[in-house]
Amino acid sequence: MTGLIGIDWGTSRLRAFRIGIDGQLLERRESDFGVAAIRDDGFEEALSSLILDWQPEPGAFPILMCGMIGSRQGWREVPYCSCPAGIGDLLGGLTRIGTRCGAAFIVGGLSFGDSDGNDDIMRGEETQIFGTVPSTGRQLVVAPGTHSKWAAVGDGRIEKFRTFMTGEAYSLLREHSSLGWLMRDASEADHDAEAFASGVGRALADPDLLHLLFNVRTRGLLKGEPPAALASYLSGLLIGSEVAGALRHHSGNAVTVIASLALGRLYQTALSAAGCREILHADAGEAAVRGLWRLWQLHRKEVDR
Amino acid sequence: MTGLIGIDWGTSRLRAFRIGIDGQLLERRESDFGVAAIRDDGFEEALSSLILDWQPEPGAFPILMCGMIGSRQGWREVPYCSCPAGIGDLLGGLTRIGTRCGAAFIVGGLSFGDSDGNDDIMRGEETQIFGTVPSTGRQLVVAPGTHSKWAAVGDGRIEKFRTFMTGEAYSLLREHSSLGWLMRDASEADHDAEAFASGVGRALADPDLLHLLFNVRTRGLLKGEPPAALASYLSGLLIGSEVAGALRHHSGNAVTVIASLALGRLYQTALSAAGCREILHADAGEAAVRGLWRLWQLHRKEVDR
Repeated sequence: MTGLIGIDWGTSRLRAFRIGIDGQLLERRESDFGVAAIRDDGFEEALSSLILDWQPEPGAFPILMCGMIGSRQGWREVPYCSCPAGIGDLLGGLTRIGTRCGAAFIVGGLSFGDSDGNDDIMRGEETQIFGTVPSTGRQLVVAPGTHSKWAAVGDGRIEKFRTFMTGEAYSLLREHSSLGWLMRDASEADHDAEAFASGVGRALADPDLLHLLFNVRTRGLLKGEPPAALASYLSGLLIGSEVAGALRHHSGNAVTVIASLALGRLYQTALSAAGCREILHADAGEAAVRGLWRLWQLHRKEVDR
Repeated sequence: MTGLIGIDWGTSRLRAFRIGIDGQLLERRESDFGVAAIRDDGFEEALSSLILDWQPEPGAFPILMCGMIGSRQGWREVPYCSCPAGIGDLLGGLTRIGTRCGAAFIVGGLSFGDSDGNDDIMRGEETQIFGTVPSTGRQLVVAPGTHSKWAAVGDGRIEKFRTFMTGEAYSLLREHSSLGWLMRDASEADHDAEAFASGVGRALADPDLLHLLFNVRTRGLLKGEPPAALASYLSGLLIGSEVAGALRHHSGNAVTVIASLALGRLYQTALSAAGCREILHADAGEAAVRGLWRLWQLHRKEVDR
């Protein structure tokens, strides 16, 4: 038995975890070299500058990577595995590449095709989800972010999932829309809990997001609401709209939120307002560590057999 | 009796109409000097360069202006008139200013406060709507665009209305989102009617717009759909979502669409798919001319009294 270097390499962030022989997290590091920031063959450089000193010699510890690193824009494209899928179904797609730091394996993502022929995809969140859910029972899990993923899990298998472009919509509206200048001076630190809750309540009561967004404008223009209140209200409208939609689609009174503490609190507020009775929180980094570790144990077992 | 110079001065376009003594449109001109493009005191210059030669001498014909020209960013801020409101209710707010081309009157916009305390506003569309609807009966009218307005009209009065940020959302998603690069090469001329109808159908069946948008990505990434089909599908999702929302809110089987021919056809497709049985089309310019003319006749009557 040996330790593992786990990597969660997303679009905007590269996160590395040094994992001990019992799966415990020994150290974590991260950098801005997400997949979108890498030019040409920059993957080698981004990885080795972050973790080369974790290897007593190259290849001493195996490296397991999940996330957008396995996409067409990543280091090596790894096919999606279609849902329903359990963690074991990811083993077949594991793709080995040689790196300056030693051999590395890339995990493929998941795809889900609904009955109307529409496809959904995820890369990275599946590993976090498998690192969070127990192997029995039914769970509803959300991994919020730029593209939030809501997964219905049964006995440890992801049965179906749905993506919401919530985080991206928030950034677009703040940075490029006619609403943006009304909240130009608001920083994320200025969160206005009351305005956020008010946006959530409105989105839970009315599904017309394209209309609700215009209210941000009138609250600013006619009521003179300050930038921080408008930004929080906008965030509430979008998260409330996501939560309302996800709960219409996947019923469930218990939801696990895989997120940072700050983002987790926003989802907790919205889920409570929507009537969820049991809301659990899981740290995204810890979930990735557990998922990568579980996957690596299964891979070792398979290799040893 | 004299003719009238009618102006519909919006955020992005300045439209001018030379109107004859019986209200007939004699000539129309337009420029890119919408309110957003005007710096400092550029209103005089933008107006006179477009219409000064229509005046045999300054002030020969009265000038009546509607639209964002009456907003805080416009030439002179004119207060909103609150709904329900008929065309006569706009008379009280008419604001006279002196210009190089002669005296001009600015029409105020309308505001509507719903029972939950949320406000909605319009400037310019009220004049188009009053130029379109008959003075009796119930009508549902939409003026689509950057910020689409849906108005419920009873006996010639706008009882309530709702704004949808549909056009702006489309521009944002095409120009700045992670979906944009998938349709970078599509021009508006490449409209794909089948993909548009497919997007409309999907949005009518599922209110989760934040989720539906992600399907544009998977259709491009997994199914390799061409840019024009993706752009039309996105347009269908947004217009379908607007139509579904508006019809949930304002019931009505007959809808009048005030738009250009091309945009009018898109709304006709979406409204038909949503089950509307009677869809009328009105040209936005002609609607503005009729509305400005009607308003001017009422103003003259009031002055003469």
